[in-house]
Amino acid sequence: MGEAVRVRLDLAYEGTGFAGWALQRDQRTVQGELERALATLSRQDDLPHVTVAGRTDAGVHATGQVAHADLPPGVADDPKLLRRLNGVLPPDVRVRRTGRAPSGFDARFSAVSRTYRYRVADAAELVDPLRRHDTLHWPRPLDVDAVQEASRQLLGLHDFAAFCKRREGATTVRTLLRLDWARDVEGVLEATVQADAFCHSMVRSLVGALVAVGEGRRTAGWAGALLGAGARASDVAVAPPHALTLVTVEYPPDDQLLARQEVTRNLRC
Amino acid sequence: MGEAVRVRLDLAYEGTGFAGWALQRDQRTVQGELERALATLSRQDDLPHVTVAGRTDAGVHATGQVAHADLPPGVADDPKLLRRLNGVLPPDVRVRRTGRAPSGFDARFSAVSRTYRYRVADAAELVDPLRRHDTLHWPRPLDVDAVQEASRQLLGLHDFAAFCKRREGATTVRTLLRLDWARDVEGVLEATVQADAFCHSMVRSLVGALVAVGEGRRTAGWAGALLGAGARASDVAVAPPHALTLVTVEYPPDDQLLARQEVTRNLRC
Repeated sequence: MGEAVRVRLDLAYEGTGFAGWALQRDQRTVQGELERALATLSRQDDLPHVTVAGRTDAGVHATGQVAHADLPPGVADDPKLLRRLNGVLPPDVRVRRTGRAPSGFDARFSAVSRTYRYRVADAAELVDPLRRHDTLHWPRPLDVDAVQEASRQLLGLHDFAAFCKRREGATTVRTLLRLDWARDVEGVLEATVQADAFCHSMVRSLVGALVAVGEGRRTAGWAGALLGAGARASDVAVAPPHALTLVTVEYPPDDQLLARQEVTRNLRC
Repeated sequence: MGEAVRVRLDLAYEGTGFAGWALQRDQRTVQGELERALATLSRQDDLPHVTVAGRTDAGVHATGQVAHADLPPGVADDPKLLRRLNGVLPPDVRVRRTGRAPSGFDARFSAVSRTYRYRVADAAELVDPLRRHDTLHWPRPLDVDAVQEASRQLLGLHDFAAFCKRREGATTVRTLLRLDWARDVEGVLEATVQADAFCHSMVRSLVGALVAVGEGRRTAGWAGALLGAGARASDVAVAPPHALTLVTVEYPPDDQLLARQEVTRNLRC
């Protein structure tokens, strides 16, 4: 059968019908669907394990999720792998690209950052039923300038504990690389949020805080002042998951994949 | 109760769950939902009649549909009409704006043109499950230059019978004002199609013909040569409805609404 070959999988999914990425007993999950599809193609009873860059929560979508799996060479190098996978996957998960992973590639540990999008329609005339599964309808208009000003104060390396749901042993110190708000061609507000990694519920907590600023219920300085609070801030609302989408995962050049993987593993273990 | 007041309604809906706009017995239709919602607010047993600019087919969506209804003054002038309507409508139909219609306004007959969008993802890596309800996945890449060249030959006043499903008494002479293809930020092909009005299945037949050109199965000249054929061309495939969305309806300045209405009524009766 030959030695297993690592394959990189680029994925898109609608999170509406899933209990999130990660495998859970008796729940429909993206990982579960993907591992079952790979097992079908590999004709293996033991499910191939899939490692992912961003473990999205229930209801969260992805257009640019990245995963890897170690597969038998006959499957990994099948030129029809992409088409076959999409043939057995349900329509709310699509594989966009497949291919042998470069040496040193680990979908999770080699990644240098993740970028998410959060969509808010802040007026009745912006509501599009076709986009109701990935857009929050907010009934009052938001002041984009105030939101942008508050967002700038959150950039950089900080302890984001105020914006994190506590998880045992997980660090809350993160580097927020980008937090930009702009209206799309229709007028819907889109936040673009990029960090080296995110603690649990971080994007949704940042959005919840910034919506309060955009409405004028909080000042732009309030959000920044929460940094370094050291613990979850009880007055930060967590925005709903359905408007959140993982759009890209960034990797270093191929010759730095292994080094990056080693750095990240040491940071998180 | 006072004389009825004409209200303009701007609507968006996802067509997936509807048997189209127009009322049909025992079918879920957008007109049916809207008329029932207006009856609920008006506390009337007889449903208020709603007139629409574009009678979309089953499965076709709208972001910029326009309709009018003649309502009791207490309902028409209720400042909470928008919110109340959205409160009783199902989530796949939203009213984006309401207001007294200007004098001489008729949603159907005052309109000078309608603009539709058709979305085609012509590669696996462009497929986004979140957009599967308004995007056609085409498994082979399309040549945009060839499609654009063929589209230009269709512009202007022509007998579009080759692209129309025959309907008794309906003219197939139309003015095609715009037929443009461009990739959106993600790379998905979007056709923008504007005409004074459309005969039945016209946008989907134009798209079906142009996809054949984009694939190289037909020359750019073939589509143009179908004009004036005088009857439906059997070798033109009708593209599926789910990727079609009515995006805007154009009206003349307020002082020309009545004149336009009279011109259009004479043309079509």
